[in-house]
Amino acid sequence: MTKKKNLPEITAQVASSLPALGASSGQIRNQVLQSLAELLENHDQQILAANQDDVQEARANKLSEALIDRLALSAHRLTQLVAGLRETMALPDPLGAIEDFKTLPSGLMVGRMRVPLGLIVFVCEARPGAVAEACAMALKSGNAIIVKPGKEVARTAKALAPLLTRALESAGLPGQAATVLPDLSHEELKELIGLNQYVDLVIPRGGENLIRFVDENAKVPVLRHFKGVCHLYVDEGADRKMALELAMNAKVSRPGTCNALECLLVHQKEAPKFLPQVGSALIAQGVKIVSSPEALPYLPGATKAKADDYGREFLGLKLAVKVVASLEEALDHIRQYGSHHTEAICTKDQKRALTFLKSVDAGCVLVNASTRLNDGGCLGLGAEIGISTTKLHAYGPMGLKELTTAKFVVTGDGHLRN
Amino acid sequence: MTKKKNLPEITAQVASSLPALGASSGQIRNQVLQSLAELLENHDQQILAANQDDVQEARANKLSEALIDRLALSAHRLTQLVAGLRETMALPDPLGAIEDFKTLPSGLMVGRMRVPLGLIVFVCEARPGAVAEACAMALKSGNAIIVKPGKEVARTAKALAPLLTRALESAGLPGQAATVLPDLSHEELKELIGLNQYVDLVIPRGGENLIRFVDENAKVPVLRHFKGVCHLYVDEGADRKMALELAMNAKVSRPGTCNALECLLVHQKEAPKFLPQVGSALIAQGVKIVSSPEALPYLPGATKAKADDYGREFLGLKLAVKVVASLEEALDHIRQYGSHHTEAICTKDQKRALTFLKSVDAGCVLVNASTRLNDGGCLGLGAEIGISTTKLHAYGPMGLKELTTAKFVVTGDGHLRN
Repeated sequence: MTKKKNLPEITAQVASSLPALGASSGQIRNQVLQSLAELLENHDQQILAANQDDVQEARANKLSEALIDRLALSAHRLTQLVAGLRETMALPDPLGAIEDFKTLPSGLMVGRMRVPLGLIVFVCEARPGAVAEACAMALKSGNAIIVKPGKEVARTAKALAPLLTRALESAGLPGQAATVLPDLSHEELKELIGLNQYVDLVIPRGGENLIRFVDENAKVPVLRHFKGVCHLYVDEGADRKMALELAMNAKVSRPGTCNALECLLVHQKEAPKFLPQVGSALIAQGVKIVSSPEALPYLPGATKAKADDYGREFLGLKLAVKVVASLEEALDHIRQYGSHHTEAICTKDQKRALTFLKSVDAGCVLVNASTRLNDGGCLGLGAEIGISTTKLHAYGPMGLKELTTAKFVVTGDGHLRN
Repeated sequence: MTKKKNLPEITAQVASSLPALGASSGQIRNQVLQSLAELLENHDQQILAANQDDVQEARANKLSEALIDRLALSAHRLTQLVAGLRETMALPDPLGAIEDFKTLPSGLMVGRMRVPLGLIVFVCEARPGAVAEACAMALKSGNAIIVKPGKEVARTAKALAPLLTRALESAGLPGQAATVLPDLSHEELKELIGLNQYVDLVIPRGGENLIRFVDENAKVPVLRHFKGVCHLYVDEGADRKMALELAMNAKVSRPGTCNALECLLVHQKEAPKFLPQVGSALIAQGVKIVSSPEALPYLPGATKAKADDYGREFLGLKLAVKVVASLEEALDHIRQYGSHHTEAICTKDQKRALTFLKSVDAGCVLVNASTRLNDGGCLGLGAEIGISTTKLHAYGPMGLKELTTAKFVVTGDGHLRN
């Protein structure tokens, strides 16, 4: 089909833009985002037409309607995308700030300067908006980026690629700093994420198979989350109305997302009153419930949970329920079945809230708030490039700061080491 | 020789200590370090005797004197080690602090809580002190640790191992939280660093071969530095006396270390006066100089540098010298040959100092200070577990904070996602 690419050469060229990006001011980098937003507005018809071709091919290939919905752009979605770019533009410049500055007793002045990570490879699936968003975040934080989008959006990605080049060049930066490679084969992707002399980081964003492929084949660091198996624990004495709202919002507002609720843990003292309420509300929304034996009497229509229903990401209108004897049992359950993604407690008790916050090992731990709020936007980061369940470098939603690192900058007056 | 170990079981047991460590107060974790210091003092004869056996075997195996010097303990070195543990104890608790706390417009309260990374595998070579130091730093920051020391110090490590267990147990913590595995074969080490369901991080500390082995075989994140190819650039108009002192300190104070100077870059205007001075001082200290052709006339006794003398870690009394026409040429040279470890400039010009600090991509960039100062102790971190040239998570010397991560802690009042 396509001729074999010289990936080391392409990657070296993208990496060669790093000095210029690193030396550029925040204003120049914002100008790239500004131009990109304008170019997207001015070329909307062209992009939507390319996307229509992708949609038609997806239909011809009999892809699922859910997938087609994800890959389809509309005038409205394009407007939202452009608005998102302008919001990212408005965020503070993540570069250049010197943190932890101190003068040591020796007179040596030491600080840590925020600098870009370098060259990021972003591997995503069939969401064309993610291509533009990831490029905007990478460039705003001074990084170069190579994007490998899902082949289902190849035509849309090809329409976007020259706009990225033009946006960069209009700000006086190297056009190749954001490079889209829509035609990469699996073998080529494997080669790309093995080029550790040029690539600093890979961020896969998509389903578990994609992330596992990247994780197993990368020779550079990978920031990823495998899955979100999120729990809500309803504590003894919790506000039942609040608990009901949290459970419903977490389960049904968008069940296909990684921060949707998969398992509800209920303290045994709350079970008799709370479970019938939440059970009928869930069933009314079409949620299938599987539960532990103790909960079954309170959940008409529920079936007994099988062993592998716990720790499972249903990604749909299905929920596991379990009655627990104590906070400790809830914590043990989460330790065993959680995925280090998002965990929540509903409680009125301050001490148990704190114990939960401290004990649960997850990128985001919430008290009296919906698991669906684990999102860069909702948590005040502005844009988000992914949610990390890796503990190294970033844990939880990753914003602009997580696309930077900090180097030690040291100033002396002829200081020597004894 | 040794029977095959059940590494998944051992590792799972070490990991099972994490909840207790994570829940422990800073005071309890300090108590472990306090006990360890006392145990080392009370068992000094036993440890020194075991170490003597290691030294004898090393002699019998005709290991190099440099290596024997590294693996040998003395009463003085043991006292220094104990003093180091007490200094680590005195450092602030890296856990529990909530950073970046803010209340969002929605009323949602968001912060990031410092928590341990988890289970760290520390792979080192023949430095017995490093075993105790790494355990102290890991435990102080709430992590569990498995140490694989070099087999040359197996007996010393076996004498240390039960003291770690006792120190943990005396503070009421699980004794296996710091486990030493001195008899691990290469194949077993490979298995250990592949256990990504239990191990969160591998830190190799030692020569390039060790680090490369770990890097190629680990299935968990690795924080490492491959080598330190450190440069000092003597700028036009620099204080020549200071430049001379910086060059001498960086090259000869301890030439075998990763932050020692390997290449001196001199502005062409300074070459005629500076090079003869530094050249004779270096030669007086037994340093062999290889240099670019332009510098040769000013460096009696120097020979012409071969292409691969640049970018090389000599780890001994040898230095590459190059004359450059400008700061930009120095920056280009460092970009091409540096190892992202330590880079320094000697200058009186504030603007060029800043350009250097901003442009050089290295974990530690210094102005008017010796490259030898890139060290956790000298830069105010207190203890140091290694110097990272990886940009992810930590860049430069890694102290206690770099052994932690930050999770999002979120408190609401029934907050939902729209």
